[in-house]
Amino acid sequence: MRIAILGATGVVGRTMLEVLAERRVDVTELVPLASARSAGSMVLCNDREWLVREPAAGMFEGCRFALFSAGAERSRTWGPVAAAAGAVVIDNSSAFRMDPAVPLVVPEVNAHALADRPRGIIANPNCATIQLVVALEALRRAAGLVRVDVTTFQSVSGAGQKGVDALVAELAGNGSVLNPFPAAIAGNVIPAIGPRTPDGWTEEETKIRNETRKILGMPELRVTATCVRVPVRVGHSASVCVETEHALERARIMEVLACMPGVVCYDDARDPTPLDAAGRDEVRVGRVRVDPDDPRVLHLWIVADNLRKGAATNAVQIAEQVARG
Amino acid sequence: MRIAILGATGVVGRTMLEVLAERRVDVTELVPLASARSAGSMVLCNDREWLVREPAAGMFEGCRFALFSAGAERSRTWGPVAAAAGAVVIDNSSAFRMDPAVPLVVPEVNAHALADRPRGIIANPNCATIQLVVALEALRRAAGLVRVDVTTFQSVSGAGQKGVDALVAELAGNGSVLNPFPAAIAGNVIPAIGPRTPDGWTEEETKIRNETRKILGMPELRVTATCVRVPVRVGHSASVCVETEHALERARIMEVLACMPGVVCYDDARDPTPLDAAGRDEVRVGRVRVDPDDPRVLHLWIVADNLRKGAATNAVQIAEQVARG
Repeated sequence: MRIAILGATGVVGRTMLEVLAERRVDVTELVPLASARSAGSMVLCNDREWLVREPAAGMFEGCRFALFSAGAERSRTWGPVAAAAGAVVIDNSSAFRMDPAVPLVVPEVNAHALADRPRGIIANPNCATIQLVVALEALRRAAGLVRVDVTTFQSVSGAGQKGVDALVAELAGNGSVLNPFPAAIAGNVIPAIGPRTPDGWTEEETKIRNETRKILGMPELRVTATCVRVPVRVGHSASVCVETEHALERARIMEVLACMPGVVCYDDARDPTPLDAAGRDEVRVGRVRVDPDDPRVLHLWIVADNLRKGAATNAVQIAEQVARG
Repeated sequence: MRIAILGATGVVGRTMLEVLAERRVDVTELVPLASARSAGSMVLCNDREWLVREPAAGMFEGCRFALFSAGAERSRTWGPVAAAAGAVVIDNSSAFRMDPAVPLVVPEVNAHALADRPRGIIANPNCATIQLVVALEALRRAAGLVRVDVTTFQSVSGAGQKGVDALVAELAGNGSVLNPFPAAIAGNVIPAIGPRTPDGWTEEETKIRNETRKILGMPELRVTATCVRVPVRVGHSASVCVETEHALERARIMEVLACMPGVVCYDDARDPTPLDAAGRDEVRVGRVRVDPDDPRVLHLWIVADNLRKGAATNAVQIAEQVARG
């Protein structure tokens, strides 16, 4: 199987290569693509080195899949080209996520949406959204959803390699010249991810709201988010308050979560942290509590590796699902 | 004015000495007290050095105030002794906070409660609670309160000097032997502060709920918290969702907050972070947003220095208020 990866040298692209190898995806030919800065370097996949090139028309010919993680602008440029060449495009940027003709998929939640992809493009959701909807879907099936409010603790790798570099430089005592964040991130937390609307919501918060609604197929669901950057290298966490239609007992909620594919549910003996989640594919849920004032309100803590389940693993799972037909 | 400080060498005790000096409190004699480990050392206050001693009966005689920050056990032992000696005890531990005969005070919110202190003891609230109730009081006066849900980002200094030491050691690459946290804290976030109830709530979360209700005089107020430790040295942050009785427009909410004594309200041009708040006394509120699905629901971001407004400054403000009569 010939597979193209656009953004092959970025943090998500490199993780895609790892995940493809780990999951023994049958990549007979890899077409790693990146910007001029990285073209000419080599990447490793399935024990072979592959030359990184700049994308150009023709390079997607014969590709079964084209996995994109190079930003929305490049996705808008090359997505239609790759799709026209016959590749199934799985795009990790925000370019196509809210396009009604593009399915937005987390396989555990809405794999059924993959069947209808008129543009030949499938969108991979925002990293913070993916881990949230996996847990929400379990709760929806068991108790229905009324309202979701989430506060995120997002790692610097969510801003790409430059985010990781900024944290490392600051921790080493080098005020980082190329800090992609609006303030120092080492020893700090920053309640702002992306530009904001006149009403004060950030782009990241708007993505979580809109994408959760689309993936769950609940366009009216009450969803709000407050997105915060924390000095963690890999692994996003979220404190989530969910109002369900029906009350569930605490033990039942934990059972429902534990039975959800892709979820590991923690009891009070231990709590999931981003250090536990880094390098792993599961969505970890802990701190399950029933609101003392309203039995239909639950409080949860959700953690996952934002580069893996939040990006690369989810994209590869989509490809596996499509390949299976 | 003779003032005793129990726990004078801890992080909060040292901050109390700084705040007393900065606010030009007329300390004619300081009685710094600490455990055997610190007894014999000297502390600086108002340009003079004072010998630290172990607490003993008689040491509180003639003291106008006794400021305590040495843990609940020592407060239970020495609080009644100091009060019997005629000192007004201002206790930063959790020992007396929920005692109906002990006022729990944040001066901007409920200074009136100081008048009635039958045990001669006044309790200083939990650090995360103080910054929360200052903002909530402003909203209550303007719109009434129905429900509060908060997720905290609490700095390591909230666990005392040993918390700061653990973060510093880990950042320096020394796995800290004396880590007071249940997991590594450098490059991580830990959703657990204190022991927990069978229902899964931690002690810190229960404190925020109970203390907020007591300070606001609203014993039925719906309050829930999720408390998380973050690798920040000083400064607690909180993402807060508040349901009010009446809807307020965004500009009006920001005006109401800006007019609250002790509060600085940020517009979208900048967001408050713990690095901004460290060393300062104000409660900083930003990210004010009206819920898109319910105009009676607000979302806020609140930051303050947990050692100052969250502990030492609030205690000294209480003393000033009592001294004024």
